[in-house]
Amino acid sequence: MRLEAEKMVSVSEAKKLIIENCDSPKTVELPLLEANGLILAEAVYSLIDTPPFNQSAMDGYAFSFDDWDKESGLNLTGEIQTGDHSERQLGSNETIRIFTGGAVPAGADTVIMQEKIKKDNNVIYIQDENIAKGNNVRLKGSQTKKGEISLRQSQLLTPAGISFLTGIGITSVKVFSKPAVSIIVTGKELTKAGNEISEGKIYESNSVGLVAALNQTGISPESVEIVDDVLDEIKNVVSKQLKSDILILTGGVSVGDYDLVPDALEQCGVKKIFHKVKQKPGKPFFFGVHEQTLVFALPGNPAAVMSCFYQYIVPAVSSFTQKNYFRKLKLPLADDYSKKPGLTYFLKGKTGEQDVSILKSQESYMMDTFAVADCLVELPEEKEYFSKGDPVNISMII
Amino acid sequence: MRLEAEKMVSVSEAKKLIIENCDSPKTVELPLLEANGLILAEAVYSLIDTPPFNQSAMDGYAFSFDDWDKESGLNLTGEIQTGDHSERQLGSNETIRIFTGGAVPAGADTVIMQEKIKKDNNVIYIQDENIAKGNNVRLKGSQTKKGEISLRQSQLLTPAGISFLTGIGITSVKVFSKPAVSIIVTGKELTKAGNEISEGKIYESNSVGLVAALNQTGISPESVEIVDDVLDEIKNVVSKQLKSDILILTGGVSVGDYDLVPDALEQCGVKKIFHKVKQKPGKPFFFGVHEQTLVFALPGNPAAVMSCFYQYIVPAVSSFTQKNYFRKLKLPLADDYSKKPGLTYFLKGKTGEQDVSILKSQESYMMDTFAVADCLVELPEEKEYFSKGDPVNISMII
Repeated sequence: MRLEAEKMVSVSEAKKLIIENCDSPKTVELPLLEANGLILAEAVYSLIDTPPFNQSAMDGYAFSFDDWDKESGLNLTGEIQTGDHSERQLGSNETIRIFTGGAVPAGADTVIMQEKIKKDNNVIYIQDENIAKGNNVRLKGSQTKKGEISLRQSQLLTPAGISFLTGIGITSVKVFSKPAVSIIVTGKELTKAGNEISEGKIYESNSVGLVAALNQTGISPESVEIVDDVLDEIKNVVSKQLKSDILILTGGVSVGDYDLVPDALEQCGVKKIFHKVKQKPGKPFFFGVHEQTLVFALPGNPAAVMSCFYQYIVPAVSSFTQKNYFRKLKLPLADDYSKKPGLTYFLKGKTGEQDVSILKSQESYMMDTFAVADCLVELPEEKEYFSKGDPVNISMII
Repeated sequence: MRLEAEKMVSVSEAKKLIIENCDSPKTVELPLLEANGLILAEAVYSLIDTPPFNQSAMDGYAFSFDDWDKESGLNLTGEIQTGDHSERQLGSNETIRIFTGGAVPAGADTVIMQEKIKKDNNVIYIQDENIAKGNNVRLKGSQTKKGEISLRQSQLLTPAGISFLTGIGITSVKVFSKPAVSIIVTGKELTKAGNEISEGKIYESNSVGLVAALNQTGISPESVEIVDDVLDEIKNVVSKQLKSDILILTGGVSVGDYDLVPDALEQCGVKKIFHKVKQKPGKPFFFGVHEQTLVFALPGNPAAVMSCFYQYIVPAVSSFTQKNYFRKLKLPLADDYSKKPGLTYFLKGKTGEQDVSILKSQESYMMDTFAVADCLVELPEEKEYFSKGDPVNISMII
C-alpha cells in the first residue's frame, strides 16, 4: 500500500514511509567474486564431498594400522605425490610415501609424519608411542558432504565464504541484487568541475558526492545527468530515468519560482509520498514513487544532499540488498549543545574513543567539516538543550 | 635495514619484521572518484573562494539595509535567477527578486525571505521586526578562501570530502597509492572451479579467496597464476611477478619433497626474512624481500591462507596506503577454551553484542565456519587455558 503524507512529516515517519514503499528484494545469480559482500538469497548446497577423498594431513607415510607389525616395520613400496592417485590396494605391512593433501590409498587408514620414523633401506620403523588408528588422515566428506547445506540463506558472502564455496565446487550464487540507481542534478548555476567558473555560478559537486557515497555501498549509478531549471528538460530526463529502481534528484525542490522538480515529477506520474521533513538540513526533501521506482528529490545544498543520502537512501538500498552498510552507535556528547525545537538535527560529527564531538560549519551549504566528519549525530525533534555526556544516536558514514 | 630471523619467529616478531621491511609509501595523483577512501598524501588548497560570490541563502528579495526606508518600502526593479549575474549596482530603496544560491547584486547586503514581505504593485514592504543587516546572505569566501588549506595531509578522502573538494574547484588529489599485488598459487592437486574433479585433486580456492579479500581493501591483483609443483615453473612465474609491490604465493612452503617454493624464491634472489611462525594455522609461513617487492609465501591450507592474509598482508597493504581497513577490538570470550602452549592461535570467531564466540572447525583445511566468521580471535602463544569472560584480542574481517 502506498501511503501519502499531506503535511511536513517527522524523520521517523519519513523513514517508515520509505521502507513501506520498498518492494520485496530481487535476486540475481552472480559469479562468486561479483557476489563478494552481498547477501545470499538462497541456501547453497555442496556439489562434492570435501575433502573429496581420504586426504593426508602431513608429509609422511600411509599404512594400515591394524595390519602393521611393529617389529618388522613397514615396507616402503612407492610414493603418491599430492594431486596424484593410486589405484593399487595397499598390502599388509606395506607403506607409501605421501604428502600433505595427498590421496591416502585404499587399504591405508593412518599416516605417520616423516619426523617420527627411522628408515633402514626400504623399511620404515615408526618411532611414535602415541600413534593411533586414523591419525593424520582427513576423512572424505569430513568438512562437507555432497548435497548438504553449506551456507544458509541470508548469510553475508565474505572472502572466506568465497574460498569455502569455491572449494566445494560452487562458482556462482543467488544473492539479493543491488538496485539500479540514476542521478539527476538540477540547477542553472552549476558548472562542471575543471572548467572556469563565471560570476553567479558554482561548481556542481552533488553528483560527484553522490556517486562516491553510492560507491561505498558497492553501487555505480546507471546514469548521471545535469539539467537546467527548465520544466520540460527536467521532465524529459526524469521520464527517461524512471526505469531505475532508485532515482535521486538534487535541487529545485523548495518553493521558489524556479523550484520545478515537484511539478516535473508530478507531470511524469510520480506519486508524492511526502514533501518536507521536520529536519535540518534537508527540510524540503521530497519522496515519491512511480511503479517500481523510488524517487528521492533532495534539496540542492551539498550538506543536505549527503545527509539525506545517508539517512534515507542508504536504508532504501539496504531494503534491496538486505545488507547493513554503516554502524549505528550511541555515544555521549563531548560538549553541551543547543538547538531550536521542532526539527530533528543531523549534525556533522567526529567520534572519539569514548564520545562524539559536533563539528563547526553546520550550515547546509558548508562542506568543510563534513569532509572530516566520520558520523552524523541525530538530535531529536522535540529536545532543545543537550549536556556534555548526554547519549546521542550516531550513524557512522565511513 | 633488512633483518633476517634464522629461526621460527613469534607472531609479534613476524609482524614487526614485515613492517620494518616496508618502504616509505608512494603517492599518486588520482581523479577524486578514484581516490575515494584513500588517504591524502599532501594538503589540498582551495582554488576559489566559496561561495564564489555573495550568495542568497533564501528565496526572497535583496536590498541595502542602510539605504532602506521602512515607510516607503522597496521598489522591485528586477529579478536575478540563480546562476545569473547582474552588473547593475542596486540603488537606494531598491530591491531585486532573488532565489536560494543566487548572486546578491552589488549595493545589496541583506535578503528578506519571501514569506516575510507584503507586495503592493511593485513595492515590497518588509514584515519582519527582527531583520538585521546581512541576514540571509552567505558572504563570498565564508566557507573557504582561495589558497587556503582545505583538507590536510593524512586525511581520509570520504564521499563528503569529494563533494567538498569538487565545490572548491579541485578535480584530482595526491594520495598514498595502493600496492600492485600479484598472486601465485602452487600445487599439482589443484583443479579450476567449474571443471570436473578427478581422484586426488581438489578445487583451487585460495586464489579466489585472496582476490575477494584484496577487493575488501580496494585492490584488484595485477595477475593471478596457478602453477604445478615444478621448480622451474615456479621460478619462471616468480621472476615475472617480482615487479609487483606485493607478491603472494600459496602452497609448497613446508618441508615435504615437493615443497619447492622456498628454494624457487631463493634462486630468484628473494632474501628470506623469516620462515615459520609460532602460530596456528600457518606455521610454515615464509616472508622475504626482493628489491622493493615484499614476498609472502603462505601455506596451502585455505584457512591458513585467509588467516595469514588478514594478520600479515593487510598491515603491509596499510603501510602502502596509510589506511586502516579492519577494526581491532577486545571482547570477553563467550566460553572457556584451551589450547596447547607455544603457538599463537588465530581462531575463527563470531562477535555477539557483548562477547565473542570461537567457532567449530578450526582445522586449517576447514573453511565452513570461516565462511560465517566475522573476526579472528588471537589467543597468545604462552597461555593455555582461557575462561569465559577473559578479554581477548579480535581482528574483524568484515
